[in-house]
Amino acid sequence: MNNFEFYGPTRVLFGKGMISKLSDYIDKNQKILMIYGGGSIKKNGVYDQVKKALEGYNLLEFGGIEPNPKYETCMKAVELIKKENIDFLLSVGGGSTLDGTKFIAAAAKYTGNEDPYDAIVRTDGKNVVDALPIADVITLPATGSEMNNGAVISKLETNEKLPFHSEKVFPKVSIIDPSVTFSLPEKQTINGIVDTFVHTMEQYCTYDVNTPLQDLWSLGLLRTLIQEAPKVLKNPQDYDARANVFWCATCGLNCWIAQGVVEDWSTHLIGHELTAFYGIDHGQSLAIVLPRLLKNQLETKKQKLAKLAKEVFNIQESDEEKAAILAIEKIEEFFNSIGMKTKLSDYNVESLDAAEKVKDRFLKRGTKIGEKGIIDGNVAYDILKNC
Amino acid sequence: MNNFEFYGPTRVLFGKGMISKLSDYIDKNQKILMIYGGGSIKKNGVYDQVKKALEGYNLLEFGGIEPNPKYETCMKAVELIKKENIDFLLSVGGGSTLDGTKFIAAAAKYTGNEDPYDAIVRTDGKNVVDALPIADVITLPATGSEMNNGAVISKLETNEKLPFHSEKVFPKVSIIDPSVTFSLPEKQTINGIVDTFVHTMEQYCTYDVNTPLQDLWSLGLLRTLIQEAPKVLKNPQDYDARANVFWCATCGLNCWIAQGVVEDWSTHLIGHELTAFYGIDHGQSLAIVLPRLLKNQLETKKQKLAKLAKEVFNIQESDEEKAAILAIEKIEEFFNSIGMKTKLSDYNVESLDAAEKVKDRFLKRGTKIGEKGIIDGNVAYDILKNC
Repeated sequence: MNNFEFYGPTRVLFGKGMISKLSDYIDKNQKILMIYGGGSIKKNGVYDQVKKALEGYNLLEFGGIEPNPKYETCMKAVELIKKENIDFLLSVGGGSTLDGTKFIAAAAKYTGNEDPYDAIVRTDGKNVVDALPIADVITLPATGSEMNNGAVISKLETNEKLPFHSEKVFPKVSIIDPSVTFSLPEKQTINGIVDTFVHTMEQYCTYDVNTPLQDLWSLGLLRTLIQEAPKVLKNPQDYDARANVFWCATCGLNCWIAQGVVEDWSTHLIGHELTAFYGIDHGQSLAIVLPRLLKNQLETKKQKLAKLAKEVFNIQESDEEKAAILAIEKIEEFFNSIGMKTKLSDYNVESLDAAEKVKDRFLKRGTKIGEKGIIDGNVAYDILKNC
Repeated sequence: MNNFEFYGPTRVLFGKGMISKLSDYIDKNQKILMIYGGGSIKKNGVYDQVKKALEGYNLLEFGGIEPNPKYETCMKAVELIKKENIDFLLSVGGGSTLDGTKFIAAAAKYTGNEDPYDAIVRTDGKNVVDALPIADVITLPATGSEMNNGAVISKLETNEKLPFHSEKVFPKVSIIDPSVTFSLPEKQTINGIVDTFVHTMEQYCTYDVNTPLQDLWSLGLLRTLIQEAPKVLKNPQDYDARANVFWCATCGLNCWIAQGVVEDWSTHLIGHELTAFYGIDHGQSLAIVLPRLLKNQLETKKQKLAKLAKEVFNIQESDEEKAAILAIEKIEEFFNSIGMKTKLSDYNVESLDAAEKVKDRFLKRGTKIGEKGIIDGNVAYDILKNC
C-alpha cells in the first residue's frame, strides 16, 4: 500500500426530508448567496424546499451556472458577492453548480493580481489561501463534488476545461435527498451512472500495490451500480434504488476508495477535451474513451481488469489477458444496456478529427498522463482514432 | 436505506515515516501533554520518534493509561492539565490510550458539578460542550478510535465499562505507521483482528434495509481480514499485510460502512461485562460472545449471514438458515485458526456464573439491546450459558 493523507471534513445529511435541516448548519447572521443552474430546481420543488428551510435568512440568488460551469459566468457571481458583502454560499443543483460555487468561493477571496482562472485553476488550487464557506443541496448523483475538494471549470475564451483542488473548498455541509432525483431526465440519470462508474475505474484500474480492501470496495461499488442502474431506469421513483445510486456517486469520488492506491485520471482528461471541442456531455465522453483506453493500456491494467472480470462479471477465465479483454467488453455492454452510446460516430464526430485535435493540444501542453505517465499526445491519438 | 448523518473531520496520515510529519499539524505555541500507556512505546522506538518530531515543543508527559482505561487514572491526568494549563493532547499508543485521552480532553473542559463519569460517560457524551484538541499516534490496529468520536471508559469503583460519544473528541490528526506494529505481541495482534472483525459484524449483521454498497464494503473488509491475518501472524514484519490489517481496523470503525444501515452492538455490550467481571481481554470477550449471539438471534440475522456465507466463505447453500449456520461455524473456525479461543471455559470462567451475573446487571439496568431491542437480561443469560 502506498503512503497517503486523508482529509474529508464535509458533513453529509442523507435521506428523505433532509433539506429541512439546512438551518441547523447555517448561522442566521450570515448573508447568503444561493447559487443555482438553469432553473430545474424551480420545477422539481427543491427551490421551494430550500426557501422554506431558510425562511427569515438574508438570502440573495444567482442563477444560470451552466453544465461544465464557465469561468466567465462564475466571475459575474464574484462581482455580485463583492458588491453585496456575501458571507456564505449555498449551491442548489448538480455537480456543475457546486463546482462553479467552489470556484466562486475561492475567487471571491482571491486578492492577487492575476486572472483568477490562471491563479486558481491552472495552478490546481495552489494559490487558494481562503474561500467563502459552502453548503449545498446536491440534486444529481454524478460528480461526487458534494464530498470532495475538487471542481472542474471551463473557460469559454480558450475552449478549455480544467480541474482544481483545495481543502478550502470542501463543502461544510452537503444535503442529499435521493427523492429529488425522481424527476431527473433519463439522460442525466444515465450520464451520472457512467460518470460514477468511470470515477471508480480511475481509482481502481491501475497497477496493483497490494490494496485488497480498497479493491473490494471499488468492485463492490461497480457491482452495486450494475445492480441498481436498471432499477432506477425502469422505475425512476424507486427510492431505495435512487438512494443506492446516489450513495455510490458520492462514494465514487469522496476519496474513500482511493487511499493508498495508484490512480489514473486519463479517461477524464481525454474526455474533457471531447467536451471542450465538441460539447459532448461529460458522461458520454467517458463512455466513449474508457473502453478504448483500457484496451490500449492493457499491459499495465490487465491484472486489475482480470480481478474485475471475476468479481463483477463472474467471468471464470484463468488467462489474465483474456479475462481482461472480456471485462472491457462487458463494461461497454453495460453502458450500452442502460442506453449510453460509446462511439464518437454516435455523436457525428469523426474519430480522426478528434484524435488530431487532442494530439495537437497534448503535445503542445507536454501532457503525459495515465498511472505510468505514458499517455502523451501520440498515445491519445491511438486511443481516439479507435473511438 | 435509512436516513443518516455523517461527519468525520479527522485527518489521517498513513504510512512509513509519517510520525515525522506531526509538527506540520501542531501549533508550536501550544503546551502539549503527551499521554501514553504502560511504556511499550519506549521499547519499540515510537517514543523517540515522537520526541524527535516535536523537538523544541513544550511537551509534558503522562504515562500509565491501562488497557480498558480507568476513569480514576484519567482524572489524575485532568488534574495535571489544569495545574499546567495544557492546550493540546497527544495520545501515543493503542486504542485504550486514545480512548482515555478522549475522556481526559472532555473532562478537562467540563465545568459542571457532577462526577465527570456520570456527566460525560453515563450520558453518552450529552454534556460535552467543549474538549481539548487531540492528535494521536496510534500503535495498535483494533479499536478504530483514531478516526471516530467514541471512547470506552471503565470505572474501577463500580466495576463498570461504558462507552461515550461526542463530536468534540474526534482527533484532529491521527498518524498510522503500520511498521510500528512489527513488534506487537502476537496476542495483541490477534485481539485486534478479532475486534475489527466484530466491529464490522456489528454494523453488517442485522436485518436488511436495502444497502448493497455498505454490505459489500463490510463483506470486503471481512474477506480482507481473513486473507491478511495469517500473513501477519506468519511474518510479523510483512509491511503490506500489516498495512492492510491496520487500514481494515481503522475502516472497521470510522463509520464509513455504517451509513444508512441498522447496527447492533450487543456482542460488544455483553463482552464489556465479561471484561468488567473477569478481566477477559476485549478481543477475547468478543470471540466468546459473537458465535453464540448470532445463533441465538438467527431469526433477525439469517439473511445477512447467508449473504456472508456466500460472499466471504464461498458457501453454495440455497437454504438461508442452513447457510447462516454454516457461516457462524466458519467464523468461529477462523477465530480458532488464528489462535483465538472462543469458550468461557478457556479462561476458567463458569458460563452459568457469567450468565447469572450479566443477567442480574442487565435486568437491574433495564438493558434491552440488539437491532430489535430484544436482548434483555434473560436473553443474555441464554446466550452466555452456551458460551
